[in-house]
Amino acid sequence: MPAAEASAEARVRILGIDPGSTVTGFGVLEQAGARVRHVAHGTVRHPRHASLAERLATLQAALVELIATHRPDVAVVERVFVAASPRAALVLGHARGVALAAVGAAGLPLHEYAPSQIKLAVTGSGAADKRQVQAMVQRLLALAAPPPFDAADALAAALYHGHAGPLAAVLARVAPRARGRRATTRGPRFVVRRK
Amino acid sequence: MPAAEASAEARVRILGIDPGSTVTGFGVLEQAGARVRHVAHGTVRHPRHASLAERLATLQAALVELIATHRPDVAVVERVFVAASPRAALVLGHARGVALAAVGAAGLPLHEYAPSQIKLAVTGSGAADKRQVQAMVQRLLALAAPPPFDAADALAAALYHGHAGPLAAVLARVAPRARGRRATTRGPRFVVRRK
Repeated sequence: MPAAEASAEARVRILGIDPGSTVTGFGVLEQAGARVRHVAHGTVRHPRHASLAERLATLQAALVELIATHRPDVAVVERVFVAASPRAALVLGHARGVALAAVGAAGLPLHEYAPSQIKLAVTGSGAADKRQVQAMVQRLLALAAPPPFDAADALAAALYHGHAGPLAAVLARVAPRARGRRATTRGPRFVVRRK
Repeated sequence: MPAAEASAEARVRILGIDPGSTVTGFGVLEQAGARVRHVAHGTVRHPRHASLAERLATLQAALVELIATHRPDVAVVERVFVAASPRAALVLGHARGVALAAVGAAGLPLHEYAPSQIKLAVTGSGAADKRQVQAMVQRLLALAAPPPFDAADALAAALYHGHAGPLAAVLARVAPRARGRRATTRGPRFVVRRK
């Protein structure tokens, strides 16, 4: 994106987090107007053979470092609909609690969106599987390689926020003229321009 | 406890934590041989009207400060048996995850015990209610006032660890001769000596 053009627009850094009991994915995007560019993504893998407390401490430290490095303005996580077992919900809750505490400690506003909302917008289907989300995130952000599943989910959440946020109106006006290719034949809800 | 006697024994500081979605209780005990003395207890109340992320960040900061102040050697939490709904399990998991991360970040060994185990030992009944646990914890630790329910649960967990730990054998030998009064007629599993 040309620097001169970007300087006229507020840039918003969006941190997407996909907390998990064994792997937590993250993605950082920068939004300027109707444009979203990829900044970083990755996963935090909890050390094997570590205790639960040690794994959660690792996650916490990684998120604190991540926030210090990328200085996001806002954080996004998937809203959880607990259809799973209470045991699975408890385990997920542990990692999610640590992630939210890191977000809260940094003073970041947090946005939550339903997974189906995010999937629908990113892939055109609210019931898309992990591979579809991964493929679409790679295409939309023009990434050289497919991001790991958990990072793809985090990027998808950040991407959704970037377009579902206050600039959705701008996007609606801009999108039809966007030069970016449509990323799926099933009608994605938004378009990301290439850099 | 006489200082001269105590100096010959290793002192172990035990931090009990009872994480909850709205209130988290804590209790700090010091164990020297078969003796356990009360150091501190209290609750962390999450600010009203704060977001979930802010409340979890408050909890995290409070636990970090608590650990820095009391310098425990070990932490104890109740093992969770999730009979409740997935939603309740998720909510509890958030607070519990933050608590465990604080324990892990401080490098403390963590012990988990079943609530029924703790209640049985402290009150003589594995199905004791909150009031019974509160009353027995107050008696066993000779507290001037009944601790708040959540702090009482945390103190009970710490108390249980103090006696169920490596010194249980010592206690078994010492307890019959203990001068401390038996705290319940229902047969408590251990006795705490008065200071």
